[in-house]
Amino acid sequence: MLKVIAQDFMRVESIDLVLPLYRELVEKTRQEARCLAYDLFIDQKDPGHFVFVEEWPDRAALDAHCRTEHFTRLVPLINAHQRQPCIITLMEPVAA
Amino acid sequence: MLKVIAQDFMRVESIDLVLPLYRELVEKTRQEARCLAYDLFIDQKDPGHFVFVEEWPDRAALDAHCRTEHFTRLVPLINAHQRQPCIITLMEPVAA
Repeated sequence: MLKVIAQDFMRVESIDLVLPLYRELVEKTRQEARCLAYDLFIDQKDPGHFVFVEEWPDRAALDAHCRTEHFTRLVPLINAHQRQPCIITLMEPVAA
Repeated sequence: MLKVIAQDFMRVESIDLVLPLYRELVEKTRQEARCLAYDLFIDQKDPGHFVFVEEWPDRAALDAHCRTEHFTRLVPLINAHQRQPCIITLMEPVAA
């Protein structure tokens, strides 16, 4: 299982513009056959800090997600409002 | 709902020492009545970068977690192996 945390840092004045884009990205991504979880959160201390918490069965599913129509169309529109580069962390569960 | 990402940065030479402490912390925290999720991951690119993905019903549940016997005993033992301070992000879901 592949867990992903993707942290976006948006200009605060752009939040109203990016929220509909984020919502479409979440809705369409959750329809991908191999998406296990794709949830979006906002940092309580920074309204421009958006955090995706994702779960994929494997790296191939994540790579396929990054090639979808919705990803390749929406992510550049979202990233136009970045104030700093996103941070993407790919992780594996700690064995119990 | 309160989502938490807690990122620990451990010295790589300490990983074998902290893993049993982390495992006990996860096991005991999951037994807390108000813990909704408490999962631990390792960054694929940095074996000393441990990431908790947590879910609590509210801030009071998180505060109670931080006062438990297992938290107050184990976290200082874990933090003795830190190479840099942890980063804790408290978040709320983006409304659909």
